[in-house]
This record gives sequence, structure tokens and C-alpha cells, in this order.
Amino acid sequence: MNLKNFVSSIDYDIVLAEYDMQGSIAHTDMLAKCRIITRAEASKITSALKKMIDEFKKGKLKLKGEDIHTAVELELTKRIGTTAGKMHTARSRNDQVVLAERMYIKDQIKNINDNIDESISAIKKLAKKHPSCVMPGFTHLQNAQPVLFSHWILSYAWMLKRDKERFSDLYKRTDVMPLGAAAFAGTEFPIDRKYTAKLLGFRKISDNSVDTVSDRDYIAEFLADCAILAMHISRFAEELVIWSSQQFGFIKFSSDFTTGSSIMPQKRNPDFAEILRAKTGRIYGNLMAILTIMKGIPLSYNRDMQEDKEPMFDSVETVKISLAAFSEMFSAMKVNEDKMSEACGKGHILSTDVADYLVKKGIPFRHAHGIVSKLSDYLISSGKRFEDLTKKEWKRFSDKFDASVKKIFDYKSAAEKKDCDGGTSTRSVKKQLSVL
Amino acid sequence: MNLKNFVSSIDYDIVLAEYDMQGSIAHTDMLAKCRIITRAEASKITSALKKMIDEFKKGKLKLKGEDIHTAVELELTKRIGTTAGKMHTARSRNDQVVLAERMYIKDQIKNINDNIDESISAIKKLAKKHPSCVMPGFTHLQNAQPVLFSHWILSYAWMLKRDKERFSDLYKRTDVMPLGAAAFAGTEFPIDRKYTAKLLGFRKISDNSVDTVSDRDYIAEFLADCAILAMHISRFAEELVIWSSQQFGFIKFSSDFTTGSSIMPQKRNPDFAEILRAKTGRIYGNLMAILTIMKGIPLSYNRDMQEDKEPMFDSVETVKISLAAFSEMFSAMKVNEDKMSEACGKGHILSTDVADYLVKKGIPFRHAHGIVSKLSDYLISSGKRFEDLTKKEWKRFSDKFDASVKKIFDYKSAAEKKDCDGGTSTRSVKKQLSVL
Amino acid sequence: MNLKNFVSSIDYDIVLAEYDMQGSIAHTDMLAKCRIITRAEASKITSALKKMIDEFKKGKLKLKGEDIHTAVELELTKRIGTTAGKMHTARSRNDQVVLAERMYIKDQIKNINDNIDESISAIKKLAKKHPSCVMPGFTHLQNAQPVLFSHWILSYAWMLKRDKERFSDLYKRTDVMPLGAAAFAGTEFPIDRKYTAKLLGFRKISDNSVDTVSDRDYIAEFLADCAILAMHISRFAEELVIWSSQQFGFIKFSSDFTTGSSIMPQKRNPDFAEILRAKTGRIYGNLMAILTIMKGIPLSYNRDMQEDKEPMFDSVETVKISLAAFSEMFSAMKVNEDKMSEACGKGHILSTDVADYLVKKGIPFRHAHGIVSKLSDYLISSGKRFEDLTKKEWKRFSDKFDASVKKIFDYKSAAEKKDCDGGTSTRSVKKQLSVL
Amino acid sequence: MNLKNFVSSIDYDIVLAEYDMQGSIAHTDMLAKCRIITRAEASKITSALKKMIDEFKKGKLKLKGEDIHTAVELELTKRIGTTAGKMHTARSRNDQVVLAERMYIKDQIKNINDNIDESISAIKKLAKKHPSCVMPGFTHLQNAQPVLFSHWILSYAWMLKRDKERFSDLYKRTDVMPLGAAAFAGTEFPIDRKYTAKLLGFRKISDNSVDTVSDRDYIAEFLADCAILAMHISRFAEELVIWSSQQFGFIKFSSDFTTGSSIMPQKRNPDFAEILRAKTGRIYGNLMAILTIMKGIPLSYNRDMQEDKEPMFDSVETVKISLAAFSEMFSAMKVNEDKMSEACGKGHILSTDVADYLVKKGIPFRHAHGIVSKLSDYLISSGKRFEDLTKKEWKRFSDKFDASVKKIFDYKSAAEKKDCDGGTSTRSVKKQLSVL
Repeated sequence: MNLKNFVSSIDYDIVLAEYDMQGSIAHTDMLAKCRIITRAEASKITSALKKMIDEFKKGKLKLKGEDIHTAVELELTKRIGTTAGKMHTARSRNDQVVLAERMYIKDQIKNINDNIDESISAIKKLAKKHPSCVMPGFTHLQNAQPVLFSHWILSYAWMLKRDKERFSDLYKRTDVMPLGAAAFAGTEFPIDRKYTAKLLGFRKISDNSVDTVSDRDYIAEFLADCAILAMHISRFAEELVIWSSQQFGFIKFSSDFTTGSSIMPQKRNPDFAEILRAKTGRIYGNLMAILTIMKGIPLSYNRDMQEDKEPMFDSVETVKISLAAFSEMFSAMKVNEDKMSEACGKGHILSTDVADYLVKKGIPFRHAHGIVSKLSDYLISSGKRFEDLTKKEWKRFSDKFDASVKKIFDYKSAAEKKDCDGGTSTRSVKKQLSVL
Repeated sequence: MNLKNFVSSIDYDIVLAEYDMQGSIAHTDMLAKCRIITRAEASKITSALKKMIDEFKKGKLKLKGEDIHTAVELELTKRIGTTAGKMHTARSRNDQVVLAERMYIKDQIKNINDNIDESISAIKKLAKKHPSCVMPGFTHLQNAQPVLFSHWILSYAWMLKRDKERFSDLYKRTDVMPLGAAAFAGTEFPIDRKYTAKLLGFRKISDNSVDTVSDRDYIAEFLADCAILAMHISRFAEELVIWSSQQFGFIKFSSDFTTGSSIMPQKRNPDFAEILRAKTGRIYGNLMAILTIMKGIPLSYNRDMQEDKEPMFDSVETVKISLAAFSEMFSAMKVNEDKMSEACGKGHILSTDVADYLVKKGIPFRHAHGIVSKLSDYLISSGKRFEDLTKKEWKRFSDKFDASVKKIFDYKSAAEKKDCDGGTSTRSVKKQLSVL
Repeated sequence: MNLKNFVSSIDYDIVLAEYDMQGSIAHTDMLAKCRIITRAEASKITSALKKMIDEFKKGKLKLKGEDIHTAVELELTKRIGTTAGKMHTARSRNDQVVLAERMYIKDQIKNINDNIDESISAIKKLAKKHPSCVMPGFTHLQNAQPVLFSHWILSYAWMLKRDKERFSDLYKRTDVMPLGAAAFAGTEFPIDRKYTAKLLGFRKISDNSVDTVSDRDYIAEFLADCAILAMHISRFAEELVIWSSQQFGFIKFSSDFTTGSSIMPQKRNPDFAEILRAKTGRIYGNLMAILTIMKGIPLSYNRDMQEDKEPMFDSVETVKISLAAFSEMFSAMKVNEDKMSEACGKGHILSTDVADYLVKKGIPFRHAHGIVSKLSDYLISSGKRFEDLTKKEWKRFSDKFDASVKKIFDYKSAAEKKDCDGGTSTRSVKKQLSVL
Repeated sequence: MNLKNFVSSIDYDIVLAEYDMQGSIAHTDMLAKCRIITRAEASKITSALKKMIDEFKKGKLKLKGEDIHTAVELELTKRIGTTAGKMHTARSRNDQVVLAERMYIKDQIKNINDNIDESISAIKKLAKKHPSCVMPGFTHLQNAQPVLFSHWILSYAWMLKRDKERFSDLYKRTDVMPLGAAAFAGTEFPIDRKYTAKLLGFRKISDNSVDTVSDRDYIAEFLADCAILAMHISRFAEELVIWSSQQFGFIKFSSDFTTGSSIMPQKRNPDFAEILRAKTGRIYGNLMAILTIMKGIPLSYNRDMQEDKEPMFDSVETVKISLAAFSEMFSAMKVNEDKMSEACGKGHILSTDVADYLVKKGIPFRHAHGIVSKLSDYLISSGKRFEDLTKKEWKRFSDKFDASVKKIFDYKSAAEKKDCDGGTSTRSVKKQLSVL
């Protein structure tokens, strides 16, 4: 077993290569501006680094070393000799790695938020496509009350919107420039940290050098935000898997998002939805990993913290592809309005409306609820639906019932009636579509 | 085994009692304002509830029922009869429980942030008490560079400050009024949700009724914020445990915060610090609990979500008492400046300064680093310190060394020299103290 | 805030009271046997402790102190004076607490395994009650192949049986007597550890005193075993929730295990099943708690380890009540054989049988699979079932199809045909019932 | 973004290639033996597969497909045509993947247990190398009692031995042959599952086909066992990091296991130990991943379960390299006996011995403990050690003290005296070395 791999990180932190080089360019510029190194030295360093970035983007840069930061410096030294070493004045690996990580997360938050926007668009589009489709809303997976399909799925969009907000709040805390903390104590060179921050587009500089290199909150918070997002997706996925069962039949996935069985030729399995649901596992695991790594280690930098990267990279990639997969799968999905409508007939889902009917006739809600509960038992035991009841049967449960009760039994208008802010009416759905 | 307990929550959700009653008062007021119930009915309900709140605060209210919401309603019914049932018009248990939880978390965020402020004060106070104490800063738990003790511990304050920011961001997302979502579809009664929000001091109302009752993000995010805070505390605690060992001897805990051994009469164990470190366990566990509970459950409300409360309550109480314990333990701790100063003599902690000395004489940092690395090997093998080296010995490693090198070997001024923004100088510490 | 509570454990470790006292009795007996204390002293101590155990069992023993071990000793001292102190010869709190924990877990493993046996019985009983009920087995929640209902639910029993095995393996590792390790170094008194072990019914004594007091593996492994068990239950619960939906209708819970809705009078929600599913959260959380607590703490005993108890107690109680709830809920559940049978008609679940038909006529399985896959597409697009196909239609897909193909389309015999060991035939089910 | 990758597993399940092919060979042999396919067909398939295994071992086999099982079948078909398809008779991807995973884990348990044996050897070797080295044992990281260094580190070996036992218990549960469960219902072909089991070296066949393909306990338990092992290693690592600090100086790592600093030329950082400590993060994370994935998914096979592989592979590789790194680092470590001996002088670590001295003179332990506690306070306040006390000073605390008390103050003999089974005497250490 090659123990070199045990401490080496180059296999995965190559992802940070460009950030590392951009950071070095800015740091070098600052050193020259502050006359810590000469302009000529700085130019030599930064031109070579810019060239390396170009090559890297084209996939032509070969880097070797224990980690990406060493690898870049080694390559630079090979190209411009010992002047390369001047780049490391007033800097340490400790603040350097934090810089690259913060630049990376800032970029990834932008990417992920773009992906979220696409998912929200896909949801809105499907909602608009089925403006008057009514389905039985569920609590406890039991048919409960009629609801517009569009209203139901817009709830997914609101969940994602909160995810975006969380990432944006984190962005603020990540947008802090660490260079200058050096090993952890700061530096005696007369550097200008704010200038470096400006060059790299950071909003502010860090306040305490010990904290600067000890801190991995930006990763822990990022992984927590990812975990909540993954939890959301697992719920959408669960719902879609259930809806695509033969028994529900509410939706049908496009064949691009199902796979067959190696033994059962008829199968069209919702594999994409299931994998979306399962990805939650690794994303929760990544969160637990960083929290465990950081638990109980003293300040300031410890090598333990090198283990922060793989969980971070993995959650970034998983979240991005999951959102993309969700958007496409969702967009390509067929909605079976008839099945949804038919399902409204099961589970006496207008019972609340019947209770509300009594309330409007002056009966306290709790009492009305009791009456309809008994009525409901009667329906179940007799196998009848509300619509089947005779006037006499109605009266048996309450005097307040008269002919007007018949008007209740229309699923669409039952949904439309719930027209309070945020309710399931068309008006409310339209409003949501306009502000989402 | 009594299976009633399996579904009952009254043993723990009693914590929400006051919030539940305040919520019902506001909801009832709104119902009257919107003429859904009469003013007289509303007054009857709200006066009784206010009286119950009074009794509850005095510990005199006995409540019975499966959960706190049922228990309050049962008690109210006992007092004012069936009018009590009108309070539940246009409302469901599902939105009601979300309301109580959101009110609770809003309050607890305020409490926790106050506790954080106290901890930050305790840290600042100790920093001010030891303005010129120098200690060896650590990376990898190895003596690394001299640093002001005050600067080192202020890093704790910055960590806590970020925790506060995170909680404040969450506050924003929690400050959303859910009532009116009812079961999940909204209600057909002409309610005024904004009015209820105003009465209860909420900044806005929720946007989608399905999402409103399905959402537990505010708990998941709260528990994630607690986890990051607990991680911070575990690091302080670890550091203090190590510092209080006989080998370090940097600090001494007050006897109020140590305990003895049942077998070793001499022991003064840092039990408070160890328990602070260990509390991370339950707080991480609580986060994992809510994430697991919510994984893969379909919308909207499922009874699974009742299990959200105990982890939330436990983390709230644990975080509050941990912060209080930390503040008091930290305030009562004695700092051994001599031991810290003495420790500066170990580990050649001015090596970076020697390298910087060479850099200022024009040697690229990397090259200077190499020279001092060899010098350091020489010191270790010969058992000497920098201060012991003769002129000849210095020259053996580089021509650039001359008599001026002697000026480097003062730990205090080595720390002071690192005067960049956020560095370990007295100037920087003062600035931090003023903005924290 | 009362900081005493921060370090005190008496509120919860009272659970260990009886184990602590039994341990002290055995230890005292051993001390007398080894002539470290006199027989008279020993008798005084053990009689008093036996009396205290009696009182404790009757709920009449009041104990005060920071933890249960101190509390017992204080009470004993109150009763018999300083002789009580002799009981603590050659012993420390550190080995004493391990003893009580190990005795507790041994007992709880027995209790839990009894609970598992009851659950397995409930499953077997239901399987026997529906010997020839056929349902569509699922993969990916898609109807897949016909299977005996009894065979399907017996899989639950096998899962639980593995849980039992895991607990039994752990029992072996827990059944190790720690007393004599003292603080961590052993003792200079001439004790007889094997004698104590014999008195307390332990299979062996621990091998290394440092390990003895540092080790909490028995808790970590216990909590991991609980986590796997909880995962199993979450899967049963999920299945039952889905099956009890209006769309599936496979089962109906007894009203003792459902609850109503505060707003929807018709609802009969599967709350027990949902809470069973949700309990996974706290049980996973408890595992994460102990793993976090123990991560990175040095040997030997640290006060952190006091935090091991609440997760352990909570998982014990949760697992026990969950199993009991599952057994009763499962036993009281009604199975709708008609709905299951009817569901077999959806999803072309005999496609594998059609492919196997071709294989028996010499077509390689992969090729047969391809033929039936096309056939299946045809069925879906034409809305037909296999049974509806004409001879001509069959032939269009393969020459091998002849009149005998009709014999395939009987769900019960399709299930019975799968008569390999462990398959879904009645023979296999009977065998399972006999060995489970 | 390429969504193919979202469902594809070939990038990582290539690890299972050989197991898959071996499994297919055995399955094919069995099919021929049972006359389900002909001998000629079987030979054609198995010879081709054997050749492929050969090529695979030499790194010459190129495989393409969504997953390893498909890839192998595609390649085989390319080589021998449609006969390849016969191999899939009476089998499904669902039981096939379980087979490969079980074969893999069985092998890995053997490998890991070998690695554990090497670590135990390294520990024993170091213990033997320092037979009479005395160090202050710790509780709460406070110097507590003198202990043989060898005894202390042997506790590591006992921890690892328990890990081995756990893996061996799991082996038993993994050693169960799944083939024949097919999709989940078994098969109608007259297969001989026991024959396949015999060919592949499995102890028994699985009992229920639904459970067979639904079960991932063997992975969850494996990852839990890894988590406990990782926790152990994190504790060793923590201890070694602390011991290698300048303040402790108990050990010195070989330079092969430390790295330097990019800014501090003198640093020799214990990077290997720190990374060992940090690896706990990913291993806990992997456990949480599988538990999350499996939470709440219905039976039988769901595509979610494809996500079981990466956490499993990652923990296997991490555990193996961690154990190897630990063994080598530990073997190459230098122990500073003088520093350990010197440290015995701190913290009054013979106080228990002084208390035991009084006990032997008839004072109850608790009372003796109280006397020495006061004595200890006196030592701390006066800055004295026990050895410095005059006869008069001794008498001030108890009449029982006479000249013989002086004999106590020898750290080595204090350790040797604790000669109970499992104690810290040389006799006990030798016994441990012989049975470990």
C-alpha cells in the first residue's frame, strides 16, 4: 500500500487549481504594489501564472506535487526559477488553501442557485400546463381534500426558493478574504489586505488571523444547506415514485428517465426518481463527515482539515447533477389528469367542506366536526359516497342539512373556494406564479 | 407497555403551551374582526385563554390530552363550553403546530444570541485582563509562532459571532406566519392572515398552504446552526483541557468547574470542559434525527413530523446551558502567563522571523525557508536554541546573517511585528475588541 | 440557569440504580472473601444494600447526589456510617459505571430479543392467516411479479431475526466483568476478579485495565444494532402506509392504530405506522451522538463519557416500544385479499413467466427478454392485457408461442411455480414458518 | 451536464468485476448440472469468462456498460454470441449484485482483519521494546497514576481485537448465498442453490427471496464496524498528537510521518496522526449515508440501493490504508522514556497509593480518600511533593503515617504493585502479550 496517498491531496484538490493561481496573481500584484517585491519580479510571476491558467483551461497543464498549491509552485519554479519563491512572501499554505476554498464555494453557490432557478422554472411550467387539474391532496398519504395540482407542485418551488436564500446568506459569510493571516499569526510584511480583496472581488477581509485559518464554517454551513436541499428533493422524489405506481397512476415518466429490468421485460422503473431520493444519503454523510472532522480539534490549523475537501466537492457535484436531473425528469413527465380526478372520488375528501357548511349555519367547528365524523363512519360502513345520501339520511345527522348541501360536491369548486392568501384557488396559484 | 405514550406528545410539547394559547388568542381576534365569529364569542374565548396563560405562568394550569393543542382546547371547553370549538374555525392542527414552533424558535434564537453575547463578553474581558501575555501559537498542536494570548482567544469570539449571524439569518426565515394554511389547502372562510401576522408580530405570511404545513426547514436549519456552534465549543473545550494538563499548565480552572476523583484524592479534573466537548454528540445527533425523519416523506403533513420536537427542545436547552457554562467557566479561569512565556522557548518558534529576515535581505522566501530549515535541523541535533548560536555558526548557513539577527529573539516584539489587519499585534487586538 | 445540572447525571442514571447496588454487593462479598475487609463489615454493607434494593423496587427509595453511584453511597453511609466507605476499596467510579452499564445492556438485550420474538410471532400469525393470498410483489414500487402475501411479509421476520443475531453477538462482548480496573491501572489489593464475575453472572473478566475504563464499544455497537433494526421497521412502516392509502387499499389498520384529523372528519390516519417510521430519526441520532462523543478523545476515562447514557437509554426505550407497537398494530391489521388480487391485473406482472416460457422452448434468456419487452410495449400502447391477445398477435412476436401460452395466466400458480429454496411457493413458506 | 452519469455505476462498481464473473461461472455450472442449459453451452460461457478474468487481472479487459454486470454480459456476448444470454437464466440483476457485494465484503473482512493483526503486532513490538518504561497514566488528560507504558498501549491492541471480533461476526452473516432469489420471488427453473453456494464457498443459502434482494444489512453493519474501528484510531491518533507536542514530548515521530510547514521552517508536524484522526469523518459519514439511503424505502429492490457501493468501497479503502499507516507510523515512532519518567513527578500521582496505605492500616477508603485530598491541597498550595514532606507534616494529616510511608514513592514499584488480573504490572503485561 502506498502511504504517500495517505497524506497527498493532489488527486482531488486539482479542482482548486485555477482559484489557487488567480489567488497567487492577486497576492503577487499586492506584494509589488506594497513594494515588498519589485514590479519586475511580480510581472514575471503573474505572466507565467496567467499562461498556466490558459493551459489549464485547455487541459494542457500537467501538475505534480503533494497538493495543488505545491504543484503550482513547483511548476512555476520550473518555468521562471527561484523568483517563483517570492510569491510565497507574507503567505502560508494555511491562508492560501482557505482562499481557494472560499473562491470555489462562491462560484459553486452561483452555479447551484442557477440550477435551482431552472428547477423552479420547470415546476412553474408544469403548473401552468395544468391550470385546472384537481387532485386529492394528501396528509398521511391519505386522500384528504381536493387541491389544484398546480398549487401542490408549486410547494416544491417554495421549498427550493428557501434553499436559494440559505445559499445566498452563506455567500455573504464566504465572501471574506483570508490572505494575510499567513500561518495563523499574520505577517510582519507591510501588506495591503484590502487591496488583495478588491482584486479578487471579495466584499471584506477576515478579522482575526487565528480564526481565519482555523475556520471551516463555510464548508459546514454549505454542507448543511445541501443537506436540507437534498431532503427536499428526496420528498419530491418519494412523491413521484408513489404517483408513478400502477395503483396511483397520477404520472408517467418519460422513458428517458426510467429503466427496464434484467428479468421482467415489462418493467419501466422510475430509476431517476429513486436515485434522486437516494442521493440524500451521501449528502447527509458529507455533512456528518465535516462535523466529525472538526469536532474537538484545537486551533489553529491541523492537518485534519485537509479532509474537508472531498465531502465538499462531492456534495457540490451531487447537488448540481441532482437538480439538473430533477428539472429534466420533471419537465418530461406526463400528468394523468383523469386518474387524479378519479382519485378525488375516494376517501370522502369533501368532509371538511360539509363541516364548514354546518359552521356557516352556526354550529361550532368542533361540534360540526363530530357530526361529520359520524356521517363519515356511516359512509364507510354503507359503502356510500356523500353524493348518494338521501335527504332523510342527511337529516339523521343534523337538522341543519337542507337541499343546498348538494352544491358542495364539486371537487374543482371546493378547491377554488379555498381562496385565502396562499390557498389552493386559481387566484392564489396565479399570484404565486407571478412572484416565484 | 403503554402504547398511548407511543403517539402522545404532551409530555414534551407542554413547552409550547403559551405559544399555542397566544396563537389561539390572535386567531380568535382575527375571526371576530372578519365576522366569522361574533365579538362576544371571541371575548369569551380570549379572556379564558388569557386567564389560562396567567395560571400557566404561575405553574397552576393542569393540562391533559394527547398533545398540547388538544389539551388546551379540552381545558377551554371545560371552562366556557362549546364556544371553545369556534376557535378552531378556519384552522387545523397542522398549521397550529407550525405556528407554535415558529414562535418558540423565534424566542429561542433571541435567548441564544443573548447567551452568545455573554460568552463574547467573557472572552473579551479575559483578553483585556492579559493584554501583553505572549504564548506559543499552535498549528498541529506544535509550538509554531509567538502570539498574543488575547489575540488567540479573540478568535473564539469571532467564531461565536458567526454563529449569531447564522441564527439571525434563520430568524428571518422563521418569522413567517403559517395560520390559514389549515390542513394544507387553505380555507374557504374569509380570513385575514396579515392581520393575524400583525397581532403576533410576524414579518410576513407564508406563500403556499401545502408548503406551510409540510415544511420543517426552520427546525433543520436551527439544528444545523446549533451543530456548528457546538463544534466551536468542542474546539474551545479541547484546547482548554489540553492547556490545563500538567504538561501544559497554561491555565487553571476554578474549583467550581473541576471535580475530584472517587479514587485519586489529588485529582482536579476539568469536567465542565469535557462535558462541553461531549455535548457536541447530542447536538449532532439531533441534527441527524430531524434530517432522517424528513428524508423521503411525501407532502404534506405526516405524523412523522411530530418527532421534530424533542431534538429541537434538547438542542435549545443544551446550547443555552453550554454557553452559560462556558461563560462562567471561562471567566473564572486563571491564566498562567509564566508558563505560556516559558513555553515560547520550545520549538524554535521564531524560525519564520529568521526566514523573513533573510527575505528582507533579498532572498526569495522559498530559498530563505530552505536555509532556516537546515538551521533548524542543526538546532535540534545540537540541542541549541537560536539565541545560543555564534556568529560563525550563523554564517555557516548564510552570508546574509550579521549581528542584527540578534534583535529577532524577543517573543513579544515578534508578535507585535505582525501588525497587518487581523494580525497578532496589540493594535489589531484593540481594534478587534472595539468592533466585536 | 443552574449549572449543577450541567454535570449532574442523577436525573437519568437512576435507571442504573439496581445494577449499581447489585454490583456493590458482589464487590463487597469478594472483598470479604479475599480478606480485604472483614465478614462483619461485608455483612453490614450487603444487608443494607439488599434492603435498599427492596425499597427501590417498591419505589420507596429516595436517592440524592450528583450521580447514582454517589447517591447510593451517600444513602448507605447515612444508614450504616463510615463502614459504607469500605465498599469502595479497590474500586473506582470508572470501573463501577462500566459495570452498571454492562449489566443494564445485558438485560436490555434480553428484553429486546423477547420483543423481537413477539414481532416475529405476529408476522408468522398473519402469514398463516392468509395462506393463499396473492399480491403483486414490487420492485421500484412497480407491480412486478405475483407473490404470496405470506412470503412477502415473512421477509420482515428474517430481517428481525438478523437483528436478534446481532444483539446476541453483542451480548457476548458485553458479558465481560470490568471491576478491578479501578481508575484505569488496576489495584494493589489482592482482589479476585473472577469471583466477582461469577457472583454477577459474567462469562469472563476484562483483560486490560486501561481499556476497561476507556471502552464504550458496547454502547456504540448497541446503538448501531438499534439503528439497523430501526431502519428495518421504517421500511415495514413505509410499506404499510403506502398499502393503507386509498389508491392501494391492500390493508386497513384497526382504529386503535389510526387517529383522526382536527379539521377533516373523515380521516383515519396511519399515525402509528408513521411514528414507527419516524423513530428511526432519534435512533440514528443516538448512534451519531455516541460516535461523536467518543471521536478523538484520549484514553483513559474522560468525563465526556458520561454523555453516553441518555442516547443509550433513549434507544432502548424507543426500540422496545416500537417493537411492541409494531406487533400489536400488525396483529390488528385487516388484509384486503380482493384488492391485492385485483392489483395483480395491473402492470403485466407475468411477463417474466412469458419469457421463461420462451426459454424453455430453447431461446436464450436475453433474447426471450427482448421479445417480451416488445410485446409489453404493444400491450401498453394498445391498452390490452396478455390474456386478451389473439393467436395471431402472439405469433407476431415469436413463432414459439402456441396455445399452451394460455396456461401461464394464473397469478396463484405463477407464484407457486417459483418453488426453489427461499422462493414464493407454499412449500417454501411452510418451511420458513417452521424454522423461523 | 451528462445525465447518463446520474444513473450509471460502471465508474465505481468495476471493483466488483471479478466477483461478478466468478459468480456467473458458478451459476452457469449449476444451470448445466441441473440440465437447464447444456454442458456445451455452459463450457462456452465459463471458458470465455475465465479468459476474461485472466485479462482483467492483467489490466487488459476493457468493459463498457451502465454497470459492471451489464458490461460483463455485453463483452461476453461480443465474444460468444447469444449463448451468453443463457447465463442469465433463473437470475436477475437483483440477486446478482447482492452476490458480488457479499463476495467482496467477505474478502475485505479478511484483508482488514489481516491489517488489524499487523497493527496489533506493531503495538506488541513497541510494548516489548519498552518493558519497564513508566509513564503517568491519564484520566481527564490529567496525570493520574503511574502505569507501565507497555500496559497503556496494549489497551490499543485490545480495542482492535474487539474490532476483529465484530468483523468476524459479520462475516458469518455475510457468508450467505443469494443467487436464486432472482428479481425477488425466486424462479420456476429447477435450480440447485446449495450447489452454487458450494462452488462459491458460501456456508449457506438465503432463506427468503424477497429479503434476499431487499437486504443491505451486511453493508450497514460493515460500515458500523468500520465506524467503531475509526473511532478507536481517532483516539490513538489524538493521544499521539498530544504526546508529540513540545509540552509533553513523550514521543517523536519518524520524519517519514511528519511534514514541514510552508512558512515555518522548523516545523515537524504530525500530519499522519492528524489525518488518521480525521478519517473518522468520512467513515462516520459513510455509515450515515447507507442508513439514510435505506431509511423508509419499501421492499423489495429499489434503485436507491445502487448508492450503497461508494460508501462501502470508500470505507474499505480508508480503513485498510489507515491501519497500514498506523502500523508503520507506530513502529517508526521514538519513545522518550526520560520525558515520561520526568512527567511522573507532576500531579501527585501516588495519592491513591497513599490512600491505600491508610486503608491497609484500617481506615475506610472513603475516609482515607478525604485525608489525602486535604494533603493534596496542602501540596499544591505549598508547591511541595509528597517526597518533600517531613514526618511532622505527615502526622498533621493522620496519626497512621509513619516512616514506612516513604516506601511508597517509587513510580515503578507503584505500577508493579497493581498486579491484579488486567492490572499494570509486568506480570499482567506479559500475560497480555501471550494471549493477544
